[in-house]
Amino acid sequence: MSSEFGKSLKVQIFGESHGKAIGCVIDGIPAGEEIDLDALCAFMDRRRPGGSRLGTARNEADRPVFLSGVHEGVTDGFPICAIIENSDTRSGDYAGFLRTPRPSHADYTALLRYGKSVGMRGSGHFSGRLTAPLCIAGGIAKELLNRRGIYVGAHLKSVGNTNDVSFPLYPTRELFESIAAKPLAVIDDGAAEGMRAEIENARADGDSIGGSIECAIIGLPGGLGSPMFDGVENRLAAVVFGVPAVKGVEFGAGFNAARMRGSEHNDPYLIADGRIAAEKNDAGGIVGGITNGMPVVFRAAIKPTPSIAKAQKTVDLEAMTGAEIEIKGRHDPCVALRAVPVIEAAAAAAILDLLLEEKKWN
Amino acid sequence: MSSEFGKSLKVQIFGESHGKAIGCVIDGIPAGEEIDLDALCAFMDRRRPGGSRLGTARNEADRPVFLSGVHEGVTDGFPICAIIENSDTRSGDYAGFLRTPRPSHADYTALLRYGKSVGMRGSGHFSGRLTAPLCIAGGIAKELLNRRGIYVGAHLKSVGNTNDVSFPLYPTRELFESIAAKPLAVIDDGAAEGMRAEIENARADGDSIGGSIECAIIGLPGGLGSPMFDGVENRLAAVVFGVPAVKGVEFGAGFNAARMRGSEHNDPYLIADGRIAAEKNDAGGIVGGITNGMPVVFRAAIKPTPSIAKAQKTVDLEAMTGAEIEIKGRHDPCVALRAVPVIEAAAAAAILDLLLEEKKWN
Amino acid sequence: MSSEFGKSLKVQIFGESHGKAIGCVIDGIPAGEEIDLDALCAFMDRRRPGGSRLGTARNEADRPVFLSGVHEGVTDGFPICAIIENSDTRSGDYAGFLRTPRPSHADYTALLRYGKSVGMRGSGHFSGRLTAPLCIAGGIAKELLNRRGIYVGAHLKSVGNTNDVSFPLYPTRELFESIAAKPLAVIDDGAAEGMRAEIENARADGDSIGGSIECAIIGLPGGLGSPMFDGVENRLAAVVFGVPAVKGVEFGAGFNAARMRGSEHNDPYLIADGRIAAEKNDAGGIVGGITNGMPVVFRAAIKPTPSIAKAQKTVDLEAMTGAEIEIKGRHDPCVALRAVPVIEAAAAAAILDLLLEEKKWN
Amino acid sequence: MSSEFGKSLKVQIFGESHGKAIGCVIDGIPAGEEIDLDALCAFMDRRRPGGSRLGTARNEADRPVFLSGVHEGVTDGFPICAIIENSDTRSGDYAGFLRTPRPSHADYTALLRYGKSVGMRGSGHFSGRLTAPLCIAGGIAKELLNRRGIYVGAHLKSVGNTNDVSFPLYPTRELFESIAAKPLAVIDDGAAEGMRAEIENARADGDSIGGSIECAIIGLPGGLGSPMFDGVENRLAAVVFGVPAVKGVEFGAGFNAARMRGSEHNDPYLIADGRIAAEKNDAGGIVGGITNGMPVVFRAAIKPTPSIAKAQKTVDLEAMTGAEIEIKGRHDPCVALRAVPVIEAAAAAAILDLLLEEKKWN
Repeated sequence: MSSEFGKSLKVQIFGESHGKAIGCVIDGIPAGEEIDLDALCAFMDRRRPGGSRLGTARNEADRPVFLSGVHEGVTDGFPICAIIENSDTRSGDYAGFLRTPRPSHADYTALLRYGKSVGMRGSGHFSGRLTAPLCIAGGIAKELLNRRGIYVGAHLKSVGNTNDVSFPLYPTRELFESIAAKPLAVIDDGAAEGMRAEIENARADGDSIGGSIECAIIGLPGGLGSPMFDGVENRLAAVVFGVPAVKGVEFGAGFNAARMRGSEHNDPYLIADGRIAAEKNDAGGIVGGITNGMPVVFRAAIKPTPSIAKAQKTVDLEAMTGAEIEIKGRHDPCVALRAVPVIEAAAAAAILDLLLEEKKWN
Repeated sequence: MSSEFGKSLKVQIFGESHGKAIGCVIDGIPAGEEIDLDALCAFMDRRRPGGSRLGTARNEADRPVFLSGVHEGVTDGFPICAIIENSDTRSGDYAGFLRTPRPSHADYTALLRYGKSVGMRGSGHFSGRLTAPLCIAGGIAKELLNRRGIYVGAHLKSVGNTNDVSFPLYPTRELFESIAAKPLAVIDDGAAEGMRAEIENARADGDSIGGSIECAIIGLPGGLGSPMFDGVENRLAAVVFGVPAVKGVEFGAGFNAARMRGSEHNDPYLIADGRIAAEKNDAGGIVGGITNGMPVVFRAAIKPTPSIAKAQKTVDLEAMTGAEIEIKGRHDPCVALRAVPVIEAAAAAAILDLLLEEKKWN
Repeated sequence: MSSEFGKSLKVQIFGESHGKAIGCVIDGIPAGEEIDLDALCAFMDRRRPGGSRLGTARNEADRPVFLSGVHEGVTDGFPICAIIENSDTRSGDYAGFLRTPRPSHADYTALLRYGKSVGMRGSGHFSGRLTAPLCIAGGIAKELLNRRGIYVGAHLKSVGNTNDVSFPLYPTRELFESIAAKPLAVIDDGAAEGMRAEIENARADGDSIGGSIECAIIGLPGGLGSPMFDGVENRLAAVVFGVPAVKGVEFGAGFNAARMRGSEHNDPYLIADGRIAAEKNDAGGIVGGITNGMPVVFRAAIKPTPSIAKAQKTVDLEAMTGAEIEIKGRHDPCVALRAVPVIEAAAAAAILDLLLEEKKWN
Repeated sequence: MSSEFGKSLKVQIFGESHGKAIGCVIDGIPAGEEIDLDALCAFMDRRRPGGSRLGTARNEADRPVFLSGVHEGVTDGFPICAIIENSDTRSGDYAGFLRTPRPSHADYTALLRYGKSVGMRGSGHFSGRLTAPLCIAGGIAKELLNRRGIYVGAHLKSVGNTNDVSFPLYPTRELFESIAAKPLAVIDDGAAEGMRAEIENARADGDSIGGSIECAIIGLPGGLGSPMFDGVENRLAAVVFGVPAVKGVEFGAGFNAARMRGSEHNDPYLIADGRIAAEKNDAGGIVGGITNGMPVVFRAAIKPTPSIAKAQKTVDLEAMTGAEIEIKGRHDPCVALRAVPVIEAAAAAAILDLLLEEKKWN
């Protein structure tokens, strides 16, 4: 407990695949902010399956309905509740997993945590579908941030062993938009070819494939964050690890920094156009938990979809014997694809929370 | 703001190098717990410089004094305040850094965040010395955990390009103890040779070197944690990123999972000695944010010490011109060495917090 | 910000009178708890207007719909979202109050706090209607508490200058049920006559009248709570002051204790049926912030409804002149009547939160 | 758990009478704030016993020492730790209370809550002495508030059956200062005579007497606070109930509002000197949880000191029989006297927290 994050901007996610609706409550958005529903839906469409043949065949409407907090397209200062109704759920597909749990899926751990009453049809509250309400919160956060010149963008850094190039030292809003417009969210279209092949091969094998996502936030003021446990890294990581399948988060040079010397890793300051900047950005825009005015850059590792068609070994919890399981149904062979806007949403909401808390607001 | 973490076990860190004392308040430790001060000091000694010629030459006593919450070696149920007095501080060494900020050090970001009144002598509240009170909290947490059969251990996974072997599938308490007893916290003594060479070479060059740390928690019950934003990964990462110089955190296969297929990454369940276990542990003991009963395993990337003897480019914030800086004084060429027990401390405190919160306590 | 309370049981309220729905998210209810929807609706009906001719004539359905967290009448362990659709809202009645604010209503303070975009039709998020979702949370909490032998009951202690008798030293479940079944929630039916007269007279005068509510919680274990800022009094008061119109909260002898001597106020311990108890209960069941096993007893002061038919003096915020205002529409002449179950709900949710947090749960 | 309050300004209290020191950590005070230690000590002296013959005869130095966060009298932006060493503790006086608990004292509830290891000598963490660190936090908060034209003052509203007059509609800084300079904190010196007689009579009888305190905050901006659970009333009450012996908190007309009609209770707005004000202040400056620009006024009920010289009935928890107890030692016959600055401290810290959180800070 709890499916909530944030201090000055609180986001509470609710819902299971088998319930009437999923949604979120967003508490802390100032009054008078225009919400562009079309822009929000366009953002949310980026995480929808069915957008391309690389995703699953399920159909989800995912158009949010505001129950409170938004009136005639403008926030009224009170908590925003937005929901998405559930329609296309085939809970029958999921029966039996509490007896023969799917490897690396939450069936077994949910059973340990909640007991037999846990509502796990459609993977319950663990479902990747719960990233849709996170995208509502993040999409609204993005609108507020954009209005203040702050932009959040992400791309597929890798799928399997195929890598996209990294963000340039200064990513731009235009770059973010061009990536978002592509069927596969990459910078280098050449990389997209290899990624598609990795995904198609995995699907053909009844298998799945992992990936990684690089996210950048530009336009942030320096001086945001704190040392120790309330820094920008702590806050971003705590939310990003809330996106299902994320197994690692690194900032700037990240794990590569562990192999570097100080003279190589340190980012020398310089003056450009009368402003302090850095020659390079191995810090990922954060030093001592606080932004230095450079773009904030981080990467998230996304594990391969645990639901695969191949037969897998597991156990029968009632008979207490070994067992074999074959998972029916349609599943994304690469959840990293759909996770790109979700990572943006997580970052946008976490950053807006920090901005509202630390009074860097307009 | 704030130098605090935890929900059921709150740890508040305070202090700067130039103040009278550094310390912590630990609120939530149950009454009646024996605190073995010798064991605590032995644990804290592992992060002290001067323990070997690879560390800095500064002398720090670092013996904690309990002001409250512990009476005759037993907790009395109330908040524990423990302090370490500051003695050997040479604040003069640090003058001027708010004018010509050290690259990849918190001088510039602290100035942006707090203004000119910020207390940055000795790096202020950003100092690595603040990990000592974190070790008090973590050391106490370890004593409580050990008494319940839960053990936390860590080793240097790498220094520069020299790698130690990884933890085995089932690390043991004995392994943790043998690592802790070594001058360099490794599993494979052969790796220690290469690491020493990396560090000595960096020091000889007036430079520093990064490293990475692998940490494991054994004996944890399954079913600990939650989906979404309050999972074991979120909670551990939020605290571990509070250790200065950490730039990445990954669980189980971590970033390597991004290159794997599902059939390779999924951990098949099996029955061993009548208990559910997994054949391997690419999940790092956590699925859906919840422990599955396997060891929890994570790695942290530690950047190279930003303070190096080599001349570095920076800016003069008053003249608004480029500048060059040479940092005097003695500095650890590889902070990863001292960070090993600190990572253990962060993990132990975060895990005890989760256990107290989720009522798995005996 | 924020319309949320609780630590281990978080209750987030959302909605405005003019939105599509009002509701709440309840995060932290264990899995496997049966929710009796009829019992919940019966509880909620106690706060409905139209239940008697003493309330307003508005018609509100107020039947909650569960969007998540409850499946086939049983909690599944995940956050519960419950909503009530808005239907009978006549927002036109409220126009203009941001220009000529109603005395002792939130019009003016909302304007100061949120600016002109604040959504105040139907009093927005300040509406007494928002106590309906609090009753959902509290009603569910009551079901869980009842199952563990803990009961929460309240009665109208006073309306205007007419007083009911106080709860006896040991209130019973049967007493709570008999009060709840009465048209006016009193212990002494004689008091009800006088209260009705006070209310009818106020209404006839185009006026309103205040009241007070006494609430008791029985069956609580001793040892619940903490000294200082996390005691039972702190936690209950923080939630009860969230009920609109509450202007005071007192425990046990309360403000009367300020007039007493220690020898009179102290509650001597005694042994009854082999258990420790107290001869009387001026402490209201709480000493040092911690329950002592006696019933927890508190009272809340409810101010008279600020919306009255009589002409009132106010200001015209645009013209910056004095003004007179007449408030149209139907309003409860005595909100204390409807607040009785709301106070029970607030108490039940706050107590369940404490129980879940402090592991006194079975 | 926990002895902490606040969101943007966190105050953590630690200590027991029998430990080395008591103190607090204050996290969130901006950098660059001057701390006038003499003013702080003068404020803290107001809660000291021995200041007049009406208090206890114990001697406490209570001069705070800053371990961190304050350098050369100026805050440096990091957490402030301040301690007061314990010297004059006679723990022997308190032996045996865990066997024959003092009526209406925390002995029995502490035992239930923490078990036999609870550290209750000198009343442990429940001791009124713990209000000293609260006064450090509140005294610092007062200095910051005063610098922004916000003042907090309090007076003894009553002792036993003797009442002081109430604050005028617009209390002034000068009034606060004149009250603070008096030996007994009253507005009407005539009331002081009667109060002294009540206290002396109680002491002569081996008894104690209760009292009430009225507190006002002037200079606050309108628009501070929130509806529902994060309003000014909720936040103030949650902290004020943390002051030992407080059994009730009411705002504005408070419990008297329960007896009033709306036409009598509502505060008509008016324009004075071009600003919006109210004709009277039965709302206590707070409507809908939000300040309206009028002084915030509340009262706290303080129970009589539970430690009295008279013999009292209790139980022997080991023999499980009735018992009689006589409490030795010197005790304040009226804790309300010393609680006056403590209530101011609680209010100042809670208000500064709200101001820092809601960005009304300059």
